[in-house]
Amino acid sequence: MDLNLMRELSVATDSKIVLLILDGLGGLPMDPFGRTELEAANAPNLDALAARSDLGLSRPVAAGVSPGSGPGHLALFGYDPLEYEVGRGVLSALGVGVELGKNDLAARINFATKDESGRISDRRAGRIATQDAVKLVDLLNENVNLDGAEASITHEKEHRAVVVFRASGLSDKLSDTDPQRVNLEPLPVGPAEGAGDEARESADLANAFVEEANRVLADHHPANTVLLRGFGMLPALPKFDETYKLDAAAIAGYPMYKGLARLAGMQVLKEGEGIAGEFETLKNNWDSHDFFFIHVKATDAAGEDGNFERKSAVIEEVDALLPDLLDLGPAALAITGDHATPAKMKSHSWHGVPFLVSSEYTLPTAESFGERACAGGSLGAFPAQEIMGLLMGHALKLNRFGA
Amino acid sequence: MDLNLMRELSVATDSKIVLLILDGLGGLPMDPFGRTELEAANAPNLDALAARSDLGLSRPVAAGVSPGSGPGHLALFGYDPLEYEVGRGVLSALGVGVELGKNDLAARINFATKDESGRISDRRAGRIATQDAVKLVDLLNENVNLDGAEASITHEKEHRAVVVFRASGLSDKLSDTDPQRVNLEPLPVGPAEGAGDEARESADLANAFVEEANRVLADHHPANTVLLRGFGMLPALPKFDETYKLDAAAIAGYPMYKGLARLAGMQVLKEGEGIAGEFETLKNNWDSHDFFFIHVKATDAAGEDGNFERKSAVIEEVDALLPDLLDLGPAALAITGDHATPAKMKSHSWHGVPFLVSSEYTLPTAESFGERACAGGSLGAFPAQEIMGLLMGHALKLNRFGA
Repeated sequence: MDLNLMRELSVATDSKIVLLILDGLGGLPMDPFGRTELEAANAPNLDALAARSDLGLSRPVAAGVSPGSGPGHLALFGYDPLEYEVGRGVLSALGVGVELGKNDLAARINFATKDESGRISDRRAGRIATQDAVKLVDLLNENVNLDGAEASITHEKEHRAVVVFRASGLSDKLSDTDPQRVNLEPLPVGPAEGAGDEARESADLANAFVEEANRVLADHHPANTVLLRGFGMLPALPKFDETYKLDAAAIAGYPMYKGLARLAGMQVLKEGEGIAGEFETLKNNWDSHDFFFIHVKATDAAGEDGNFERKSAVIEEVDALLPDLLDLGPAALAITGDHATPAKMKSHSWHGVPFLVSSEYTLPTAESFGERACAGGSLGAFPAQEIMGLLMGHALKLNRFGA
Repeated sequence: MDLNLMRELSVATDSKIVLLILDGLGGLPMDPFGRTELEAANAPNLDALAARSDLGLSRPVAAGVSPGSGPGHLALFGYDPLEYEVGRGVLSALGVGVELGKNDLAARINFATKDESGRISDRRAGRIATQDAVKLVDLLNENVNLDGAEASITHEKEHRAVVVFRASGLSDKLSDTDPQRVNLEPLPVGPAEGAGDEARESADLANAFVEEANRVLADHHPANTVLLRGFGMLPALPKFDETYKLDAAAIAGYPMYKGLARLAGMQVLKEGEGIAGEFETLKNNWDSHDFFFIHVKATDAAGEDGNFERKSAVIEEVDALLPDLLDLGPAALAITGDHATPAKMKSHSWHGVPFLVSSEYTLPTAESFGERACAGGSLGAFPAQEIMGLLMGHALKLNRFGA
């Protein structure tokens, strides 16, 4: 979407917008002639809403391309996910709740095993247990010393952690140390392909960190070294208040989605317990903001587990709470996902994501909410980046373009 | 489609992709309330496959724009046909089976008639018969002498031929000699609008060729001169192995399609007789490649002839062979055309082309394969350039984008 056009046309009004994201909502029938998770769900409130809504199938990134959560959400927020890339290191940092400053450099850490010849014999240190890895993270935080820079390590899960470097003039145009295969020496960090000299100093810093980590971890076989990958810094995203003149709030249970919402300039609200808690938070903050992003994770988790019935059940749980949301009277409400996570595939996929937008100004085409109802909707198959424009239009927050 | 994105995400796997092109597949009802050629065809296998497939209408170039075979196929192969233009001279050369080198310059030749005042009195030399033109082509090949360059002429049909210049430092930024109307003098070849000095030498060479041709043909009225147009050199297309990590093969009966496939980096397989022979070739080479482009020409030819029934009959012939193809077990199979050639119009047209992609991961929406079934499909109306991405996704040959 053209963010400049939004900036030019958007106006602040009292009307409220809600963007309800059921993560990984899109699904597939388990066999070609069956129903999808959403179609199979007993969701009378969603169906009734769909019967009053504009429908379509939204596509996060590109044909055939399965998006990660980062690009999936950037597209929902109106950013071109191919233009605004968020590095793995940044997403990991956001995911564990580290607040990144704009000059901070983040990278993913894998604890790994190095043999006596200096070659990597296990890229995951035997999938070291979380409780052991946490101790090693503490050890690193206490003992690693860098010249003119700080390194702060946060544990993620099992052998995975995140390091954030704080110094001036850092660059994220850096190559990984992970040799990708065992029995190879780790690679030194270097300026990435096409990077200028400004990356040299950051590479030296990262290499000094690896050296320090090797010293500190020397006696902690199998986790006697670290591999670094996915160097990244915060992308400079145009913020929601500038682009849409919205005072935006986010309600999400998982740190990564909170982090992504913060990147877009949203205020992250303290959520209650579970999906009902999120809806309660919405109600309690209704008067304080004019845009709400609500993130429901459990649909994606069920899809990743290949659990068709649980995914349908999560949709039914949201369905039961929907009347409370509608009672608040949003001027425009969109319900969709950041990508498909069909239980059949147990993974994110490239398929179109069911989308509805409800407002006073809709052209209904179907009697229910589902992939096939959406395929025949008035919005057709369309890029997810256009969702913010649709919401702004339906909430009457965009001036006419041209005379 | 973003070829860089494909290059970044694509992985080589054992799964097989088939792209089956029925040239000019898209059609129209002869009267508004009738059926299209595809809808009218008795094609139970295509219908059964469509009932298990994702459907849509693919658009080759732009709204309202009828594509030639060159841009139609470039789009199918994932190239932006507006970015990668293949000149008429190059298409003609490919069409007659001339293998162009990357430094060769091709142009179309029309034999024409020049009167005593030097003006063109017939731009097609009275549509000289093929047997006569062939002799003149031989005469030119034997007698034309150029300084520091070779010119090789190949006959096409009637008054049409192709010339390929071989020399170093050639440019195709050249203007045509065809004055487009009779009773005008032919134009000298010059650097095309916006071309730099590097085109001057090539223009001199082309003009020297015309002068030589005039000398050789002086006594061969009505074919006593040649007009040159459509100067072109091979475009440098990113190849399938780099972009998609595919070992791609092409099965096509006509030289132009073989040539276009070679441009994309496909290996052209020796095809058997007719459509059945093409399918036989597919079977015989199944283990040697992981991508197969199969080109069926007869649908387009029937459409161009305005023969609705014959076009349906060709579709039925393909339908009868389809089970053999499905038995091979492609992971992803797309069936579509490079453009529409409605019998009603007797020409290529801009209309959406019925498209299906079949794999294990589809969201079926209809019971048959046809324009209207595809219009309601989950892919909607979409650019043909996205087909390769869809096939790569469905064959599970793309890594996730972003974390």
